[in-house]
Amino acid sequence: MRRLSAVTIADILATGRACADAARPETLRYFRKAWTEADNKAGPGAFDPVTEADRAAERAMRAVLAQRRPDDGILGEEYGTSGGTTGLTWVLDPIDGTRGYLSGTPTWGVLISVADSHGPLFGIIDQPYIGERFEGGLGQASLTGPQGVSDLATRPPRPLGEAIVLTTFPEVGTEAEGRAFRAVAGRARLTRYGMDCYAYALVASGQVDLVIEAGLQTYDIHAPIAVVEAAGGIVTDWRGGPAIEGGQVIAAANPAIHAEALDILAGALSPGTR
Amino acid sequence: MRRLSAVTIADILATGRACADAARPETLRYFRKAWTEADNKAGPGAFDPVTEADRAAERAMRAVLAQRRPDDGILGEEYGTSGGTTGLTWVLDPIDGTRGYLSGTPTWGVLISVADSHGPLFGIIDQPYIGERFEGGLGQASLTGPQGVSDLATRPPRPLGEAIVLTTFPEVGTEAEGRAFRAVAGRARLTRYGMDCYAYALVASGQVDLVIEAGLQTYDIHAPIAVVEAAGGIVTDWRGGPAIEGGQVIAAANPAIHAEALDILAGALSPGTR
Repeated sequence: MRRLSAVTIADILATGRACADAARPETLRYFRKAWTEADNKAGPGAFDPVTEADRAAERAMRAVLAQRRPDDGILGEEYGTSGGTTGLTWVLDPIDGTRGYLSGTPTWGVLISVADSHGPLFGIIDQPYIGERFEGGLGQASLTGPQGVSDLATRPPRPLGEAIVLTTFPEVGTEAEGRAFRAVAGRARLTRYGMDCYAYALVASGQVDLVIEAGLQTYDIHAPIAVVEAAGGIVTDWRGGPAIEGGQVIAAANPAIHAEALDILAGALSPGTR
Repeated sequence: MRRLSAVTIADILATGRACADAARPETLRYFRKAWTEADNKAGPGAFDPVTEADRAAERAMRAVLAQRRPDDGILGEEYGTSGGTTGLTWVLDPIDGTRGYLSGTPTWGVLISVADSHGPLFGIIDQPYIGERFEGGLGQASLTGPQGVSDLATRPPRPLGEAIVLTTFPEVGTEAEGRAFRAVAGRARLTRYGMDCYAYALVASGQVDLVIEAGLQTYDIHAPIAVVEAAGGIVTDWRGGPAIEGGQVIAAANPAIHAEALDILAGALSPGTR
């Protein structure tokens, strides 16, 4: 990781929080309101809700960045890539969990992170409706929410049979990916679905042991990596490599359960070699 | 429904809210805390978490009822049945969604309702962490939450292909029940999992069209019936009969989608007759 000055670190933290503050009213403006339009960027027949809120929130965050850190790059879900000159790139997902958002559930989030060429340095998972902000990186990991401010720390190791596993969709990804997921989940104490980015916040909070997902995008996983790792956890792909480009992702509370789950995933993905 | 005086109605509403207020600190005391014990009322090998919070919250609510309405009956998940003389029975589920509670998700709830011999008259779905209270019956239906107070009203009819369906577990119940569920969900726009009682609150809020579940208990469904029906929805079993004893339950935003879903469920449950 590059060395950043204390002034730059303070500026990055303040800028990330300002982005989250700016996104909140934009996402809440349309949350649980009647929908006149839910346009569909994947074309007719597919379902990929993109809301006015999604775009308005990204515009609000880009306006903050243009003012505070105009020389950093930006990668946003809605408006693509803007180049920068500092080597730092902000990665923005204005509404992660649009299906949850459309259903009125309070487990979608605004994802904000800043990365250098090695990966995320700092990230925020913000839940505007509850008023919860999970953040981690650059020397701190904390939750600010309805119960006040607290440090984030992942769970200590426990056997997989005592562990809680989260994922968003029961089918997980492809058929083979689903089988691999169920090979792990079937040995766990409890599996829960439907949490989107909130699942990673729960790993960072010490509430659950594993999140296993597939088909993620870069902007889905950058902020979760920063928050989970700052809280003591590990985020990789299903083979233990970097997860910063998304795809098959596993977030684990600690190295022991990470290794146990990776081993089961590997066996399920390559049964012939075992 | 029996005729209740305005004074009795006001007393019931105030008592229900006092129960919810009393339960909040008890459920929050242990939420997202480290667990030293999660005892298991179903015996070794089964997983049915019963927490200190569950019991403490029911005791707190029973104390409110003993003081304010000592002659009403009580049916509570944790402490069973207490007889009454008024013909009114309070039905209490101190933590609906204990698996969600154990996982740190904010979609469990405290369920409080009061019923006469015909069914629920008034119910509350309370989410203490978010600070949301969905209530309905005896002439009103409202949400008090982070965004203030608003009326509850279910969605107008839309085709099943545009509808959102919620349930708690992907397997739903038995294999046959799961097949019937998927016959409906497979035709819907979107299916989401893991919400427990919060799913019914989202029907009442006009966010989703259907909740379909199986294996429910009386204390799981009384408060949701009151809230959903006060908001304009319908709650029955999968054959259109009363749902007050739990089992297979469907909650629908309006009669049109209720009828459409019941028809598909009937076809899936009795394929030979169609």
